[in-house]
Amino acid sequence: MKELWSKRARELTPYVPGEQPRQEQLIKLNTNENPYPPSAMALAAIREAANDTLRLYPDPECRSLREVLAETYGLNTDQIFVGNGSDEVLALCFQAFFDPERTILFPDITYSFYTVYADLYGLKYRQIPLDQHFAVPLAPFLEQNGGVVIANPNAPTGLALSLSGIQAVLEGNPASVVVVDEAYVDFGARSAIELVDRYPNLVVVQTLSKSRALAGLRVGFAFAHQNLIAALNSVKNSFNSYTLDRLALAGAEGALRDRQYLQATAAKICHTRDSTAERLKAMGFQVIDSSANFLFASHPHTAAKTLLDGLRQKGILVRWWDKPRISNYLRITIGTDQEMDALCHALAQLLEQS
Amino acid sequence: MKELWSKRARELTPYVPGEQPRQEQLIKLNTNENPYPPSAMALAAIREAANDTLRLYPDPECRSLREVLAETYGLNTDQIFVGNGSDEVLALCFQAFFDPERTILFPDITYSFYTVYADLYGLKYRQIPLDQHFAVPLAPFLEQNGGVVIANPNAPTGLALSLSGIQAVLEGNPASVVVVDEAYVDFGARSAIELVDRYPNLVVVQTLSKSRALAGLRVGFAFAHQNLIAALNSVKNSFNSYTLDRLALAGAEGALRDRQYLQATAAKICHTRDSTAERLKAMGFQVIDSSANFLFASHPHTAAKTLLDGLRQKGILVRWWDKPRISNYLRITIGTDQEMDALCHALAQLLEQS
Repeated sequence: MKELWSKRARELTPYVPGEQPRQEQLIKLNTNENPYPPSAMALAAIREAANDTLRLYPDPECRSLREVLAETYGLNTDQIFVGNGSDEVLALCFQAFFDPERTILFPDITYSFYTVYADLYGLKYRQIPLDQHFAVPLAPFLEQNGGVVIANPNAPTGLALSLSGIQAVLEGNPASVVVVDEAYVDFGARSAIELVDRYPNLVVVQTLSKSRALAGLRVGFAFAHQNLIAALNSVKNSFNSYTLDRLALAGAEGALRDRQYLQATAAKICHTRDSTAERLKAMGFQVIDSSANFLFASHPHTAAKTLLDGLRQKGILVRWWDKPRISNYLRITIGTDQEMDALCHALAQLLEQS
Repeated sequence: MKELWSKRARELTPYVPGEQPRQEQLIKLNTNENPYPPSAMALAAIREAANDTLRLYPDPECRSLREVLAETYGLNTDQIFVGNGSDEVLALCFQAFFDPERTILFPDITYSFYTVYADLYGLKYRQIPLDQHFAVPLAPFLEQNGGVVIANPNAPTGLALSLSGIQAVLEGNPASVVVVDEAYVDFGARSAIELVDRYPNLVVVQTLSKSRALAGLRVGFAFAHQNLIAALNSVKNSFNSYTLDRLALAGAEGALRDRQYLQATAAKICHTRDSTAERLKAMGFQVIDSSANFLFASHPHTAAKTLLDGLRQKGILVRWWDKPRISNYLRITIGTDQEMDALCHALAQLLEQS
């Protein structure tokens, strides 16, 4: 049946995102969404933009949004790229900076879309094993390579690298582009944005999906030297001129302007995360130190898959991967305090039954 | 400065869309936008969707929107693919159906993004010359190839192919995928959607940007045999899980439900197009028969570039390409009757001065 498919399409194993159930009674702790609503300023900006100007194309250069980003992060607009979610931004990075002949490096346990992008664009890659504590080792990323991708904090572990670690990788790779995927950075890691002016090989990728509670809007960014931003624009403009619709542009600006709301909700989530980690540990779980809006936890006596299925039966979704080294771990998104109460209660019951 | 760019990125010549000016006093007849606002049902649906659920990812499979499309076009949901504008859908088609080793075919004068996609994905292509009347010749599309792309109606000419012409191309290419880009089909051409059930090698691509006045929302579709739709899904899910945001999904459903509005605005635009064509001809222009929401016109005595610049000075934007065979043509989007009055008045003045 695949005769009419391209060779590349025949060989793909697509990324599988966490379930997006149609019914809404479930407690959804499986895709790292924010439990709090987006900023009211974002919603107001979207409603205002839902007008007759939707008949017109959006600004393909996203100038107004890039101006707000420049102001927010202390960069110039030519150091900023905007895409349809950070997944699209990452995909364009793989096309813009990596070549089929040169092996790229990323951790073995990390965001599972990286291998998928590499396959889609025919790139060779080497997966660097995390150490026994799930930390990203630095030395292997200084070996010869055609590019580096590091999620910081890493997913699904939640562990953060220090800024000096990122700097070591940047300095060891002057001829390769180093992409730092900071989807979760607002929950406790230190951003590498402050290094953009100093390292012409650095690309920092962020998103509005997590800390700004706008997963439903699809907005991601890259921050880098203008030379790398130009490469991203070249690829993007060979693919799709208008990747962000007018509503996403307006909503993103609104969200970025509400810095107080970002800080308040991120602080609440971090507080809930830390108290939930304590409760899980009290139940016997091993919990990795998280700088993200999720916890990665394993129980010595009860299989993660058993807990996954038991939670699902109780109407609670969490994420689990059938992969080496992490198949006894659950990734649990931080919800509201009430949702985490329900989770802890359900886990306590399941542990008792097992 | 391009050392850190991928080889592919270094070689790209991106697509250049028509200008999207920031000031709004201009009469904008350069990017084939609809002069009428989107359906009120689309705007209402968007405002309703601008709520707290934006914190959640959209449905990556766009099930609800595909159900509305299935009902609208009399297809099954597994014959339907949805993307972030028809440009993204077309780019994914190039990845899903075409291979670097097999030359693809499209007309020499057509949507200029096709060559850009081919370059981005490393595909060989042959551009089939339109005949002396700018019609798409059929015979060359029956020669050996690795895929065919035909815009119907064609852009920037506006000329439509008959359904039997499309059928001949489909029947002559059982081992190649034939992509029919129907961005402008609602303004007078006959859609090939009715052939989807009969030809497993047909992909019909459409958009909400033109006839449904939602260029600012970025929604495009593909209709095809479920086998080809599966290939598109495989490529899309290796690139970006969530290409449509919740607002675009909601707005698209609203727009599709308002069929009466589509018919009424398309009819108005066709009426304005035909009367404008007559007025241009009366001024001495040669005007290609258009089945789209634009006219392609040339004046025997005054260079198109002169008219382009003169119109711009009078605050009217139209589109012009510095390309062989068409460099004396202007592509003029059909606006409101008042806008076309202003255009005709301005052209008459410019012709008098020249």
